[in-house]
Amino acid sequence: MTPDQLKNFIKDVPDFPKAGIVFKDIAPLLASAKARKAMTAAIVSNYKNQKIDVVVGIESRGFLFGMLLAEALEASFVMLRKSNKLPGDIEKFTYDLEYGTDTIEIQTDAIPNGSHVLLHDDVLATGGTAGAAVQLIEKIGGKVISANFIMELDFLEGRKQLGDLDIYSVLHY
Amino acid sequence: MTPDQLKNFIKDVPDFPKAGIVFKDIAPLLASAKARKAMTAAIVSNYKNQKIDVVVGIESRGFLFGMLLAEALEASFVMLRKSNKLPGDIEKFTYDLEYGTDTIEIQTDAIPNGSHVLLHDDVLATGGTAGAAVQLIEKIGGKVISANFIMELDFLEGRKQLGDLDIYSVLHY
Repeated sequence: MTPDQLKNFIKDVPDFPKAGIVFKDIAPLLASAKARKAMTAAIVSNYKNQKIDVVVGIESRGFLFGMLLAEALEASFVMLRKSNKLPGDIEKFTYDLEYGTDTIEIQTDAIPNGSHVLLHDDVLATGGTAGAAVQLIEKIGGKVISANFIMELDFLEGRKQLGDLDIYSVLHY
Repeated sequence: MTPDQLKNFIKDVPDFPKAGIVFKDIAPLLASAKARKAMTAAIVSNYKNQKIDVVVGIESRGFLFGMLLAEALEASFVMLRKSNKLPGDIEKFTYDLEYGTDTIEIQTDAIPNGSHVLLHDDVLATGGTAGAAVQLIEKIGGKVISANFIMELDFLEGRKQLGDLDIYSVLHY
């Protein structure tokens, strides 16, 4: 399946979560075993010549394909979660939103020092969460070698938050 | 790997999320490609003679192995989410917690009528969420044939919330 064919499995939902926003719904992609396989294969193929030790998935939709990628790459999987959900010793990172702030957390011992990390989430929008995630992963000793997204909303210029990090988004809007 | 060996990948964290509670952390299980494969194989093996059309995963840790199960079973995957996260037409179900209530949601058209559904979450504790999930899935036309959990906290008697539904939990505590 080409990226254009995979776009048939992303549904536009107008005015969600608020008026004027067109939400990109991945439910049809999740519902199709064939489309899921094609999406996973596209991502894995992009990283076939790179050593990846750990896939970090951002809660909660980054858990979905994040686990499939970890399986396909025979890598470790680590959860990056919202506040107060991870037990034990954690590192946190607070970043600015349009209104207020948000905090993400990771377990301090989640990633062996120097491990090659692939960061995964479903959508790259403004890049606030992804940028924070990269800093948090590096704070606990991981080396982020690339960030991967099912789709990237190009007009929001989220990749500017990721500096010169390698980025692979399967679909672009 | 036997269930007892898989228990080596579940870490007890005392006093989380509050004093007196021992939290069962699945991070070591997610981190090990080998243990993940063994966990998935145990679950898939339990359902090998049953027709499963749809795996429903409960947000957010039910998304993790839920996607691996959907892959292995060549089934559809559907997200069951917390309030106000799913776009489009939704059905919701509000249920009682120890203090207050919680609401879960599913897209109305997520499951073709009469489909055989496997419900998945990481932990069966008091059974409140799982019981609500079964009712919600059946409200939109799905037939829940079994509920599957990585682990079941037997002393909380959560299976009482699921009536005579078939339940398969890999690990018991």
